[in-house]
Amino acid sequence: MKIQYLLFYTLLFGVFSYVNAQENLDFSGKKKIVSPEIKGKNVTFRLFAPQAKTVKLQGNWMTGTSSESDGMELKKDPQGIWSLSKDDFGADIYTYSFFVDGVKVSDPNNSYQVRDVSSVMSMFLIEGPESANYKVQDVPHGTVSKRWYTSKGLKAERRLTVYTPPGYESSKEKFPVLYLLHGMGGDEDAWMTLGRAAQILDNLIAQGKARPMIVVMPNGHTSNSAAPGESSRGFYPIDMVTPDIFSGDMENYFNEIIDFTEHNYRVKQNARNRAISGLSMGGFHALYISANQPKTFDYVGLFSPAILPPENRKSHIYTDLDTKLQEQKASTYQLYWIGIGKTDFLFKQVEKYRQKLDKIDFKYQYLESEGGHTWSNWRTYLNDFLQQIFK
Amino acid sequence: MKIQYLLFYTLLFGVFSYVNAQENLDFSGKKKIVSPEIKGKNVTFRLFAPQAKTVKLQGNWMTGTSSESDGMELKKDPQGIWSLSKDDFGADIYTYSFFVDGVKVSDPNNSYQVRDVSSVMSMFLIEGPESANYKVQDVPHGTVSKRWYTSKGLKAERRLTVYTPPGYESSKEKFPVLYLLHGMGGDEDAWMTLGRAAQILDNLIAQGKARPMIVVMPNGHTSNSAAPGESSRGFYPIDMVTPDIFSGDMENYFNEIIDFTEHNYRVKQNARNRAISGLSMGGFHALYISANQPKTFDYVGLFSPAILPPENRKSHIYTDLDTKLQEQKASTYQLYWIGIGKTDFLFKQVEKYRQKLDKIDFKYQYLESEGGHTWSNWRTYLNDFLQQIFK
Repeated sequence: MKIQYLLFYTLLFGVFSYVNAQENLDFSGKKKIVSPEIKGKNVTFRLFAPQAKTVKLQGNWMTGTSSESDGMELKKDPQGIWSLSKDDFGADIYTYSFFVDGVKVSDPNNSYQVRDVSSVMSMFLIEGPESANYKVQDVPHGTVSKRWYTSKGLKAERRLTVYTPPGYESSKEKFPVLYLLHGMGGDEDAWMTLGRAAQILDNLIAQGKARPMIVVMPNGHTSNSAAPGESSRGFYPIDMVTPDIFSGDMENYFNEIIDFTEHNYRVKQNARNRAISGLSMGGFHALYISANQPKTFDYVGLFSPAILPPENRKSHIYTDLDTKLQEQKASTYQLYWIGIGKTDFLFKQVEKYRQKLDKIDFKYQYLESEGGHTWSNWRTYLNDFLQQIFK
Repeated sequence: MKIQYLLFYTLLFGVFSYVNAQENLDFSGKKKIVSPEIKGKNVTFRLFAPQAKTVKLQGNWMTGTSSESDGMELKKDPQGIWSLSKDDFGADIYTYSFFVDGVKVSDPNNSYQVRDVSSVMSMFLIEGPESANYKVQDVPHGTVSKRWYTSKGLKAERRLTVYTPPGYESSKEKFPVLYLLHGMGGDEDAWMTLGRAAQILDNLIAQGKARPMIVVMPNGHTSNSAAPGESSRGFYPIDMVTPDIFSGDMENYFNEIIDFTEHNYRVKQNARNRAISGLSMGGFHALYISANQPKTFDYVGLFSPAILPPENRKSHIYTDLDTKLQEQKASTYQLYWIGIGKTDFLFKQVEKYRQKLDKIDFKYQYLESEGGHTWSNWRTYLNDFLQQIFK
């Protein structure tokens, strides 16, 4: 085997010496800098930057904003390699960036990156019981599809992500459906990339802790037809805020997504087999979609929901919430799940909303976690919610 | 509408001032640096780096390797913004990185990145007739699925990408299948990300230039079950070379992929409706898979195929090629397509292979393009090949 490689390398090196325009090939075998180097709960970050005056690290585990001032300083060795070690990472997925003389960069030695809103960051996973469901494990895997449905109301072909459980294609069974919604900076890819939803589902189903189900993840920005770069708008600068927020369109036309799903997949078509949940703006959507059609979903999950003052919202979707909640209370609903972090900027709004629910004796399950408005929390919430629906 | 936004911002700003741990939210409305700024065929690259001593740009349109020495220098303005403009980009997709005081970084103002082997680079698209098929256009879109099949031979669950044409799900029709293989540094995602295969297919099908077809993109590294990060190996450092190369396993167990496809999709099951093509290592695979079973594929595409000396290859797959080609020549094959760039490091090997084919009067179509071993060429080759198969 090794002789074959040597021959192969020799041939390639020979031609490489006089030819260029070969893309991203690297047969050099050069010893690369390992970053991040993970040993249990200890992580060492490294960057080769002999000319830099300062190199800092900013990670999502640090409190504070993503400005450089909050970063931790790396130390330079005589070879020009900057490094920093940190102990005691909990089991989770983390994101980070370097600041090289003030310029925010991803770790060039880490091929694994993830985009959140408009930022692309390096990522790593610390293993442990709490993150085991975020890993691809040797269990049967569901299928993840990017599909387009026609919205007559929005006059657009729109992209969505569909997870079908392992064995879906070869069975004749019908399945329950969870509609899983993203936040204001997200799109139909976010629950797959940052949320690790496919891994969480594969693992919980394999463990017998979640029922096999279909999960439909639409794009919650009705002014977009697809995630950035995936529509005919091309590669445009990504904005947090789009003109569709509070328009009521997502809630208004949501039945098109249900119809599409129920016509195109083998689905149990009743409230007992429908769930809806979402994070932040998606929690806001889940709240109003379920309140406006109280007979549609028996399971509702609000993850750090963006329950914001209703002033000036003109759509009928947002009026008479109290009456609608009374109807929902009287429905067949099985679980109304609310989760929020103690330092989430939406904590007080959620507290007020819980008081409203308490006042009318609307039963819900409440999880108050540490931390703020973070994917770490939303992965945990999904992992919890999935184990309680369709039971 | 605007009043609603203002209310919303006010609320958010209010809470932002005293709360932290909110992830990647940016309501600041700060004017961001635009990079790359594209005006027709002119592109301006910018980076805010007031402390840097040098900032260089390295793009895939430059000849040479990806080392810093070949980069173009940016100039700094009094505000600390470095910039560089370049004219006359042809219509295509491009990738680039900055070197900030020698450190290779992606453009932090460009959210669009793509990974090739282990490098993650910023990307942009220049519009024009030659790149129109690489863009998402307002045409019907096929579905792209990530699915897993069981390989008994390799004793593994393995991930593949499947493109089904627009309307597949709602029709009862059977479709032809193209098996599309990646190169040595690639995986089952590469034709989708770097190759823009879904866009090329959607567009050619909409134009009536390609037949609606299913395209199956397996992972050509038989020692891997999925792309980096998508298997239980987790987020490991990516290597160009894996122990499976030249083992014959990909060719040997390829019928498992055909069987999976023909059992799970509505497929026309005959040679006239099967095509196989691949780039570089995938071209090598396509050559040997088709030569070893001459009655299976009527269409074969070799894109910059890695036709390398056969010494020490032990598998029966690689022996007696001349005899096998004679059988293939006598088969019902319709198209044997070879494309290579004039400066490709494999040019001479392909030339020798063509001489071998010429000697036995084996008919093939040959495209000699400018440039080297690049995705720019492979996108072009796919665009050409797709228009000639299943006709």
